[in-house]
Amino acid sequence: MPPPNDLRRAQLTDAAIALLAESGVHGVTHRSVERRADLPAGTASNYFRSREALLVATAERIIALHHADMNAAAGHTAARDDTAGAATAVDLIAGSLLAAATTYRARYLAIFELRLESLRRPALAAALEALSDATVAFTRRHHADLDLGIPPAGVATMVALYGGALFTLVSAPPGEVTPAAVRGLAEAIVRSAFPG
Amino acid sequence: MPPPNDLRRAQLTDAAIALLAESGVHGVTHRSVERRADLPAGTASNYFRSREALLVATAERIIALHHADMNAAAGHTAARDDTAGAATAVDLIAGSLLAAATTYRARYLAIFELRLESLRRPALAAALEALSDATVAFTRRHHADLDLGIPPAGVATMVALYGGALFTLVSAPPGEVTPAAVRGLAEAIVRSAFPG
Repeated sequence: MPPPNDLRRAQLTDAAIALLAESGVHGVTHRSVERRADLPAGTASNYFRSREALLVATAERIIALHHADMNAAAGHTAARDDTAGAATAVDLIAGSLLAAATTYRARYLAIFELRLESLRRPALAAALEALSDATVAFTRRHHADLDLGIPPAGVATMVALYGGALFTLVSAPPGEVTPAAVRGLAEAIVRSAFPG
Repeated sequence: MPPPNDLRRAQLTDAAIALLAESGVHGVTHRSVERRADLPAGTASNYFRSREALLVATAERIIALHHADMNAAAGHTAARDDTAGAATAVDLIAGSLLAAATTYRARYLAIFELRLESLRRPALAAALEALSDATVAFTRRHHADLDLGIPPAGVATMVALYGGALFTLVSAPPGEVTPAAVRGLAEAIVRSAFPG
């Protein structure tokens, strides 16, 4: 059980994620997230001193959820098989892109809304920048642990293409996202990482 | 010289592009684009019957500008040399990504704002869908004309990765976009298109 303080923050930022996906960044205020989370008026300002602090905390929550899922997927894959590195990488990337574009679509729509908003808010840009560096480092560690055979120099480019493909998928009409299309993208991303 | 009707539409949609990049989709109204274009109150509603029609026309203007630039770049490249297909493709993609992320950054920020907004506006989604199909067809023709040697099946994936990379670049802090980083992305996108 998380302590009540952490639980409240999670409830409020999860409400912010849903509102960002539905209405864009203009849909997120202290009042709208309290309402969405069924919490009394005034709760949000106890946890976030400003609307910007709420947006930064929401970005941090999304990245924490993303890393937790990546950890789980990587652990699962490593335990399950020891096929060649590139095939494992395609499985991991296809699985994570498909889940991100379907089950967790709201979460990734929310981070892209925040990414565009960060161009108008330096505090949000700084938070996303630190999180993006952490994601590259985290991906490098994962690749090393899984022995995927992808050159370290290719990882930053691969993360950029992965993030871009995710934007293309979550911002497409939902019916367009098929497992076959997602697998084609994952294969292309993995091919892109190996010097030709 | 375009007729005055087309000129006014271009002035109004160009103002909308600038406002989308600066303030997001909430910054675009009939009144704000008239002001930005230095045109009298009431002009915008003469050309666009609703705010949605203005947003759709802005998306169409961005894609028309994008295709005109792609045509110019492809013509220039074809006239200049006849190096191997992949090298030509890397040059074209790197050049177009770099220009898009620097000189024309507002235009591409604007289309990504519209893409997220389209999830809440079916009319805008339909317009972007038609434009996206046109872009894939257009890219296929270009590849055939230039004899780039990229398998046709790879083109849709390549367009998806190109669009995603463009999102990553234009939504990054401006200082981060360097010619070397852009070239690395272009090489990765071209590698991704050839079956391994």
